[in-house]
Amino acid sequence: MTVLDPRIEADSAPVGRLPLCHVRWMRDARYPWALLVPERPGVREIHELDERDRHVLIDESALVASALSRIVSAHKMNVAAIGNVVAQLHVHVVARFPTDDAWPRPVWGVHPALPYDPETLEARVASLRNALAPRLVDL
Amino acid sequence: MTVLDPRIEADSAPVGRLPLCHVRWMRDARYPWALLVPERPGVREIHELDERDRHVLIDESALVASALSRIVSAHKMNVAAIGNVVAQLHVHVVARFPTDDAWPRPVWGVHPALPYDPETLEARVASLRNALAPRLVDL
Repeated sequence: MTVLDPRIEADSAPVGRLPLCHVRWMRDARYPWALLVPERPGVREIHELDERDRHVLIDESALVASALSRIVSAHKMNVAAIGNVVAQLHVHVVARFPTDDAWPRPVWGVHPALPYDPETLEARVASLRNALAPRLVDL
Repeated sequence: MTVLDPRIEADSAPVGRLPLCHVRWMRDARYPWALLVPERPGVREIHELDERDRHVLIDESALVASALSRIVSAHKMNVAAIGNVVAQLHVHVVARFPTDDAWPRPVWGVHPALPYDPETLEARVASLRNALAPRLVDL
């Protein structure tokens, strides 16, 4: 079991496990925002993954992006591996709207995270978990 | 042949063609920065691609990221599909350094593009083209 980077652990809540990735929900009420963290210790870059893992990563990212897009009727999905601050490989999946606080810029570094009230966070996590349920694995 | 979005055409120079993607070099001397544009008219989101295309896209992105990272001895690669401004699906591959103008933030929206002198741009394009040469296709 890969230990999650403490910053990822603090900044996001667990949604569930897909075969390769931990799926998390970012604690920023400004944007519907999921995170995928592949269970591959020590990997920092997508191009360090072997071909099979890369394919699973993009399939799982697409699954989460598609589900999140449907749930919130997103205008656009932003999918990105940045990792300048947290080294552990992680992929952001952010639902965007022309009315959101950063549009048309990407979300990173524009505004500080806006805390959720706990019920709203729980409802958001549950909505994504339900959408992914047929593909989630127990580990 | 997919027509490139005019903004992509203006903001980047052609490097070559991989089986799925046009590879371009961004005209911003602040960062070594490539762009992949899949030859799939009308597609805006990675999750709209079929599974086979998705796999080729992440393989071609990883190939470009790995080549660019080696060429410039990057500290970190940023790989992202944003597309809030230009709808045509495109993937950014940006080599990052703790000394660059936006670090540790992502590059988008932080600084205006810094023009290249033509010789430097040509040399950058040639270096990536040479690194990708065995995989480039003529179309």
